Amino acid sequence: MNRSDCPISNVLDHLGDRWSLLVIRDIAFFGKRAYNELLQSSEGIATNILSSRLKSLEASSIIKRQPDPSDRRRHIYSLTESGKDLLPVLIEMILWSAKHYSDTLDIPTELVQKANEDRDALINQLMDQISARE
Amino acid sequence: MNRSDCPISNVLDHLGDRWSLLVIRDIAFFGKRAYNELLQSSEGIATNILSSRLKSLEASSIIKRQPDPSDRRRHIYSLTESGKDLLPVLIEMILWSAKHYSDTLDIPTELVQKANEDRDALINQLMDQISARE
Repeated sequence: MNRSDCPISNVLDHLGDRWSLLVIRDIAFFGKRAYNELLQSSEGIATNILSSRLKSLEASSIIKRQPDPSDRRRHIYSLTESGKDLLPVLIEMILWSAKHYSDTLDIPTELVQKANEDRDALINQLMDQISARE
Repeated sequence: MNRSDCPISNVLDHLGDRWSLLVIRDIAFFGKRAYNELLQSSEGIATNILSSRLKSLEASSIIKRQPDPSDRRRHIYSLTESGKDLLPVLIEMILWSAKHYSDTLDIPTELVQKANEDRDALINQLMDQISARE
């Protein structure tokens, strides 16, 4: 459901709130795949919020859920093509924080340097890393 | 106040919620400057939410508030340098929606085409347009 036909509002409709983007971050940058791994974010997400955000991201086709091959009673989560295409949004967020809040945050300086040198190459490299985990 | 030292979480801390980013959109892309103009977003923001988001964006130094030269009892809002630097985040959100939701949304096709041809040139052009309004 879209609240307007604006393309920026659309992103916010699908992401829902801050937690959704942090779940995508954990899958994309930290290689998390299982529910229990996602629960261990440094921001301390509550179990009911994590469950609801996973469902809503799956409904928006940003993540997909599959049975865990090593334990079929469990599930693993991964990014869809649409979810991987959010990487440039995340990269721009990192660059903004690196530019304006470098003294108070834990900035991944190697990533920032690569992004400033060749943004497209960095995104392709990250896309490959994400796909290799699937 | 940062909930973690992650640079992505930091952006979400400062933006607060979807409304903050839509206020930035209205200032950046639609040239809105006055409270009453910002109240007319197509998403229908409530007055109390608009007031609180303007205060919080000002506290985060993303927007600044000045007396309206034409009526000094009123204020106008504009983006700070830090606020303007969120443009690339907004552009990437537009590109994501244009790629995955072009059939249901009102996509600014000229902007998308420019972004795909020469992203940096587009951002510089938009920055100049925003600065020219100040």
